[in-house]
Amino acid sequence: MANHTAHSTYEKLCTHAREVAILNSTQSLLGWDERTKLPPAGGEYRAEQMSYLAGFTHKKLTAPEVGDWLAELADSNLAADPHSDAGADILNMRRDYDRKTKLPQALVEELAKLSVLGQQLWVEARKANDFARFRPLLERTIELKRQEAAAIGYDKEPYDALLDEFEPGAKTSEVAHALNGLREQLVPLVAAIAASPHKPNLAALHGNYPVDLQEQFGRRCSTAIGFDFNQGRLDTTNHPFCAGMGPYDVRLTTRYDAQNLSGSLFSTLHEAGHGIYDQGLRKEHYGLPTGEAVSLGIHESQSRMWENLVGRSHAFWEFFFPIAQETFRESLGHVSLDDFYFAINDVRPSLIRTESDEVTYNLHILIRFELELALINDQLKVVDLPEAWHAKYREYLGIQSPTDADGVLQDVHWSSGAFGYFPTYSLGNLYAAQFFEQAIADLGDLHGMFARGEFMPLREWLRNKIHAEGRRYPAAELGRRVTGKALSHDALMRHLRAKFSPLYDLR
Amino acid sequence: MANHTAHSTYEKLCTHAREVAILNSTQSLLGWDERTKLPPAGGEYRAEQMSYLAGFTHKKLTAPEVGDWLAELADSNLAADPHSDAGADILNMRRDYDRKTKLPQALVEELAKLSVLGQQLWVEARKANDFARFRPLLERTIELKRQEAAAIGYDKEPYDALLDEFEPGAKTSEVAHALNGLREQLVPLVAAIAASPHKPNLAALHGNYPVDLQEQFGRRCSTAIGFDFNQGRLDTTNHPFCAGMGPYDVRLTTRYDAQNLSGSLFSTLHEAGHGIYDQGLRKEHYGLPTGEAVSLGIHESQSRMWENLVGRSHAFWEFFFPIAQETFRESLGHVSLDDFYFAINDVRPSLIRTESDEVTYNLHILIRFELELALINDQLKVVDLPEAWHAKYREYLGIQSPTDADGVLQDVHWSSGAFGYFPTYSLGNLYAAQFFEQAIADLGDLHGMFARGEFMPLREWLRNKIHAEGRRYPAAELGRRVTGKALSHDALMRHLRAKFSPLYDLR
Repeated sequence: MANHTAHSTYEKLCTHAREVAILNSTQSLLGWDERTKLPPAGGEYRAEQMSYLAGFTHKKLTAPEVGDWLAELADSNLAADPHSDAGADILNMRRDYDRKTKLPQALVEELAKLSVLGQQLWVEARKANDFARFRPLLERTIELKRQEAAAIGYDKEPYDALLDEFEPGAKTSEVAHALNGLREQLVPLVAAIAASPHKPNLAALHGNYPVDLQEQFGRRCSTAIGFDFNQGRLDTTNHPFCAGMGPYDVRLTTRYDAQNLSGSLFSTLHEAGHGIYDQGLRKEHYGLPTGEAVSLGIHESQSRMWENLVGRSHAFWEFFFPIAQETFRESLGHVSLDDFYFAINDVRPSLIRTESDEVTYNLHILIRFELELALINDQLKVVDLPEAWHAKYREYLGIQSPTDADGVLQDVHWSSGAFGYFPTYSLGNLYAAQFFEQAIADLGDLHGMFARGEFMPLREWLRNKIHAEGRRYPAAELGRRVTGKALSHDALMRHLRAKFSPLYDLR
Repeated sequence: MANHTAHSTYEKLCTHAREVAILNSTQSLLGWDERTKLPPAGGEYRAEQMSYLAGFTHKKLTAPEVGDWLAELADSNLAADPHSDAGADILNMRRDYDRKTKLPQALVEELAKLSVLGQQLWVEARKANDFARFRPLLERTIELKRQEAAAIGYDKEPYDALLDEFEPGAKTSEVAHALNGLREQLVPLVAAIAASPHKPNLAALHGNYPVDLQEQFGRRCSTAIGFDFNQGRLDTTNHPFCAGMGPYDVRLTTRYDAQNLSGSLFSTLHEAGHGIYDQGLRKEHYGLPTGEAVSLGIHESQSRMWENLVGRSHAFWEFFFPIAQETFRESLGHVSLDDFYFAINDVRPSLIRTESDEVTYNLHILIRFELELALINDQLKVVDLPEAWHAKYREYLGIQSPTDADGVLQDVHWSSGAFGYFPTYSLGNLYAAQFFEQAIADLGDLHGMFARGEFMPLREWLRNKIHAEGRRYPAAELGRRVTGKALSHDALMRHLRAKFSPLYDLR
């Protein structure tokens, strides 16, 4: 293929991708508005708007000419180097196009229907603490997810094809290897912390924390770590999230409890971490793979880094605690920095994933990952799922929910067919720790910088090494390139031990 | 054409129209968000999103199959009665399709470009008080508007074709007749008021009016007159507006001045009046002409009615003033109802249209209408426009702006090519007064109801007589059907004399 023809075909692909991005970003606004501003009665029509645009976008994404262009480019010079901008765009567009076009229409439609129905049924079943009501739908969903895996295709096991939707290129065996390693070391660490007589005094976190001051403080912290409000917003929702709706428009949400500071603050830092990633993507590549986030795991590594490795560090509070004390004088005026630091790093086994701490969180994820993998592989029957859930909570966390509502019915994800999604949370924690170690190796004393309120060196490092790369490398390869190491539990365990051993006086 | 074939063609048209409505309402959200929530840096991409969707919508609206369907239906039974739901839909779709398809693409594009350029140039020229800088662009715009009128076609005069865009079916001669009648009586009334020694004490309106309390009070008033916040919102912008973005989603904005109550309150009531109209359209006809507002004039009649005929009435404040006093105790505690009432009805000739009062407002509009009509008819040269503007202000209002910035460069409208738009403001005032007289004839003592806080009888009357009719009748015919009379200045002048003669002690 002549060079100039390839260039013109690539341009067509890019124009097409940018049009799709306009549609996607518009849908993102429709979704953001639905969750933050929509009048109560507006939901039904909003669903119509979103489904119409989604249908139109899907049609555009799967248009046969896209396949033709990609085929034309397959052997071109532009595609030769998969790590060049054009090469990475073409490779990733090929991948996305294949995933979208390989699924039979009937399967897509049944999955979509089941997802809506499933979420409704899940709400009812959870309310009634009645897993049996939800069971048949979950069984059918798993059948369909196996069909999906078969249609997508895989080398070793069907779960690979599902995982690939959220963590492109990741393999189940590699993820399982890292997470198994983590489990082996984490279970005893959690047990040791639970057995420690040292406990933080949580009273300091509860008090009078006016919502407007919390918002002001959250904005100040988010700005300090590098979230740009000139290109973003912060609003209030029940479930915090971050959504991009344009190269210069990334929106965070958080929730406030006027009696508690930490909930809103760490949610805000977490979402700001996601937002900083989105704001660090190359603007001029917006809508192209080279301007997109590489995977959910890497995305989560950014939110977790700012939330936990930065936001829950002693150094962060050496800088921010005096400001917090000034802002919330009544509640924090007489609290010491060390007591506050211990309180925001309270670790204890608990039943609810979303409320769990930096250490135990990964065990909640491990349980879900192991169970969903067994379900997809038919090594576990849905009927046996509730008891398997309880057994794992006993084994890993030493506790058991008295109900299925807070057991197997705790999360919405399976009801909407999201299998292969949960492990990305823990991948995020593993990557975050590995990146953070490397950043210290490259930049020196990060904690010293934090204590002086200097967060830009870390943000710029992340921007150059990770954000600006877009989808140039698959997540695992990006990780190897940035840190020189394969994904493993080592860095995270080093971090957790170094941080929590002194707090809980562990040997 | 067989009846069932006509029905199926009509269904196709309706489905198509509902798809267009989804696109339009999505654009409406993009626009609302741009004006209320968009991060500062997000403007450029938002413009791309809006222009992409506008282009796609235009293509859909002008698709040849729509013309085929309309042609098929022209002689069908469904179209026989233009006042039946289907007949009105078909007639109005035909009209809209013709307006959209009659304009040559080159003209549409030049007008669009000129509109963007014009608004930029207008900002600069206004800032520099330099009409000459704006003149060539305005001359070209007027040339193109004449071409537009020629392409659309008209019976009597080109301005008819332009007016028709905003006030479908209205004729220049009828509008001019009503407005000339108004001018003849209004100019002496304004002069008499200006000469009256009686003046309100405006100090009461200035004071300490905390923004959150103003918002609360504005919401309370809007709810009382029947705006449904379950299907709507109220936000803050520099330029208040009302925008619908779904059958159950109508959003108002207003602006606040912490030293002044009346600005925000009457803006809120005005926009709530627009919103009540939109909320009163038949939901199940959303996207079809029978579920759309009939014209800008009728829309403005609703906002003006709630703002002026209700909101600035003595009866309204008999109910709301005690509540306002309680809410703004410091500023209103010692003000009497009658002094407050006179202050919010202050009438005096002024230079700026948007800040003018219930009486003089129409003279500002008349001046613009007469000038733009003369421009389109080539009876006035653009070069002579600044002096013509001043002359009319001297003649009608007895004042003259020292600058062109507050003279001919005052409004943005002409710079974006909006000719035929201004008169709809005064049509709104005429219709409002006519409707209000008829509502009293039908419902009895409306003012007595207002004084008891009862606004639902008027809202329901408006809903049944006007809102729910959608575009079944053209505006003028709707007016005749509701009031039994042709459009005229009589009702408005009766209202203004009855209200302002006692306030200013006129004979």
